[in-house]
Amino acid sequence: MDRAPAGVEAGPRPAGTSAAAPGFYDVVFRRRDVRAEFTGEPVDPDVLRRVLEAAHAAPSVGLSQPWDFVLVTDESTRRAFWSHVQSERRAFADSLEGERAERFAGIKIDGILEASLSLVVTYDAARGAPDVLGRHAIADAGLYSVCLAIENLWLACTAEGWGMGWVSFYRESFLRELLGIPDGVRPVAWLCLGPVKGLQTTPDLERRGWRTRLPLDDVLHNERWGDT
Amino acid sequence: MDRAPAGVEAGPRPAGTSAAAPGFYDVVFRRRDVRAEFTGEPVDPDVLRRVLEAAHAAPSVGLSQPWDFVLVTDESTRRAFWSHVQSERRAFADSLEGERAERFAGIKIDGILEASLSLVVTYDAARGAPDVLGRHAIADAGLYSVCLAIENLWLACTAEGWGMGWVSFYRESFLRELLGIPDGVRPVAWLCLGPVKGLQTTPDLERRGWRTRLPLDDVLHNERWGDT
Repeated sequence: MDRAPAGVEAGPRPAGTSAAAPGFYDVVFRRRDVRAEFTGEPVDPDVLRRVLEAAHAAPSVGLSQPWDFVLVTDESTRRAFWSHVQSERRAFADSLEGERAERFAGIKIDGILEASLSLVVTYDAARGAPDVLGRHAIADAGLYSVCLAIENLWLACTAEGWGMGWVSFYRESFLRELLGIPDGVRPVAWLCLGPVKGLQTTPDLERRGWRTRLPLDDVLHNERWGDT
Repeated sequence: MDRAPAGVEAGPRPAGTSAAAPGFYDVVFRRRDVRAEFTGEPVDPDVLRRVLEAAHAAPSVGLSQPWDFVLVTDESTRRAFWSHVQSERRAFADSLEGERAERFAGIKIDGILEASLSLVVTYDAARGAPDVLGRHAIADAGLYSVCLAIENLWLACTAEGWGMGWVSFYRESFLRELLGIPDGVRPVAWLCLGPVKGLQTTPDLERRGWRTRLPLDDVLHNERWGDT
């Protein structure tokens, strides 16, 4: 602790000892992309506030915090979005053949009508502009920040005993019009969240035989691409 | 617990009680974008493995896990990247005027040479293609997944008493050539990580007067954009 200069909070423990926050890894590995397990019960507003504060505490390029959160509980809005998602589901299904088409037919892709609430997350490129520190060379850095906030939210929901599912079977133009999102602001995600009866221990897509998770070593390189 | 069907793990606690994982929020709020606090000491390989496993446990569109991780410790590679970053720093500095230019002059933008190691994270759009479930309508959904993995890594580093910093003052073409990243794979981030002497309690950019964090209520909408 005595190595920490003024204003600097010392790390929780020296490197090399066992994990400081075992509960943290539990959250990371329990987290699932939820579709079928939502209970739909009313949410505790304190829990909702905590998970949103966690999202809002995410890192962002140039401290721009370029995200917005639109809470959606209105039944007609959710039903309109759900109908759109079903048509996009059919479009994807029509692109598949044989065994892939059969497997997809058994996969649930959203919990829009079952989850307690939905949350739309957007990206506002104008926030902090024009001098967004760290974005001049990589325009997408702002978009990346929004995703970091979404992962904070996802883990916070898991920590709270909630579930979250990211729905991406939609056209951005549809969602923009549905919620009155202005030009220059991009919808990034429609998320379903709320209490769940439990979380699957294996991802739905793996249980349904769609795809198997890769071992970490398959995606790890040393010093240069392709070197292991 | 008795509400959980077979194969479903019950949530850790009923909704409405206090946070199940207080250590989780501690990690979320202690996390900083680190530049100056790296010690550079050798890393514990077990800790490195744990934080990489946390990254690799992130959600991904269609379970595509489209990320790769390139560990960079080589001194000449890091120095070459650092030099490039300094030239991009000058390019950004040249775009600023007056008070903004003065403030930027005092801001450290990377810890490439000081951190124990660097990690480059990339996006491979071909992984799981052509039938990436959930990506047909939103091409960027795969890129979003990579960012979710980065946030898992960031929080895991924080939980372990490490720090992490995301450097974005670079051109993707330079980094691609430096590490031999193939066409079709996109560099998403150069991250510095490792043990730190501590974490700042306030983000660097706020301490340096570059930008002040917004309150959550400024970015929260109800039902439709602009409604609060």
